[in-house]
Amino acid sequence: MSFQRIGSETAWEGRIASVRVDRFRYDDGGEAEREIVAHPGAVAVVAHDGGSLYLVRQPREAVDEQGLLELPAGKLDEEGEEPLETAKRELAEEIGKGARRWERLTSFYTSPGFADEECHVYLATELYDEKADADDTERIEVVEAPLADLDDVIARCRDSKTLVGLLWFRAYRRA
Amino acid sequence: MSFQRIGSETAWEGRIASVRVDRFRYDDGGEAEREIVAHPGAVAVVAHDGGSLYLVRQPREAVDEQGLLELPAGKLDEEGEEPLETAKRELAEEIGKGARRWERLTSFYTSPGFADEECHVYLATELYDEKADADDTERIEVVEAPLADLDDVIARCRDSKTLVGLLWFRAYRRA
Repeated sequence: MSFQRIGSETAWEGRIASVRVDRFRYDDGGEAEREIVAHPGAVAVVAHDGGSLYLVRQPREAVDEQGLLELPAGKLDEEGEEPLETAKRELAEEIGKGARRWERLTSFYTSPGFADEECHVYLATELYDEKADADDTERIEVVEAPLADLDDVIARCRDSKTLVGLLWFRAYRRA
Repeated sequence: MSFQRIGSETAWEGRIASVRVDRFRYDDGGEAEREIVAHPGAVAVVAHDGGSLYLVRQPREAVDEQGLLELPAGKLDEEGEEPLETAKRELAEEIGKGARRWERLTSFYTSPGFADEECHVYLATELYDEKADADDTERIEVVEAPLADLDDVIARCRDSKTLVGLLWFRAYRRA
């Protein structure tokens, strides 16, 4: 089974995301229309120094959560910036750290039934302090959690990038 | 830090999702506007019979993937239906199985920075054959994978519900 896009119309354009209504034709001759939310994509970072994991707590208006515990993360919203560079910038902006070692753990689609957002998850280790301009992070609180409490942290996290990142780390990269 | 919603306008309405532009006021007196994609939510099912995992492969137009390997899943689009009931219906429709044991593994937001979609992930075991009406599943292929190959399956999966479900199962419920 395969398909081809045979039409595309913009239905709404926002500052970050937009909505298209696209038309597809399938191998079997059938056609269908799909409403697709277009998003620039994102990065998230599992950052630890051997003793502590570094997370952030922030208000998430879309889901009515006053303080969701998450991995440091950010949108791919700088034209021409590679995902790894975005990850380095976000780690510095959100938790004030740089890292000497970077590794991509995995990439995944957050909700491929209706959105094109892809999220790239990195592991950052050998951390050092790094100051960065943090113009949009005044409502972000840094949370340091003992790496030994990883399962407790996972139990408290409730968003896809954080769960995928921490569970992947737990499965395949835990020290 | 906390916030209150002080305004909400519908910017676009689709068949499944819609977009609102909401206004929020924070504790610190600041105000901000957020573009929010509203979605009814979803369920996904880790289903195995001790020997095999049951997955599906399907075209995902939004991300230009001809056949993405995923957990059986579906939207919470039936008015008044509880997530567990939706999970049971989807398992029957997509892979033709019922299950004597059901357990909720976790629930998570797919992308809380801009969307309100929440996904509930279940574990279904003690499977039996069950026929169901499958009106919208003609492009879905059932994939049976050995449970012993779980890590290979995880390496091939690329969407949040499947990775969270399989990694959570691997971490906390593997037989």
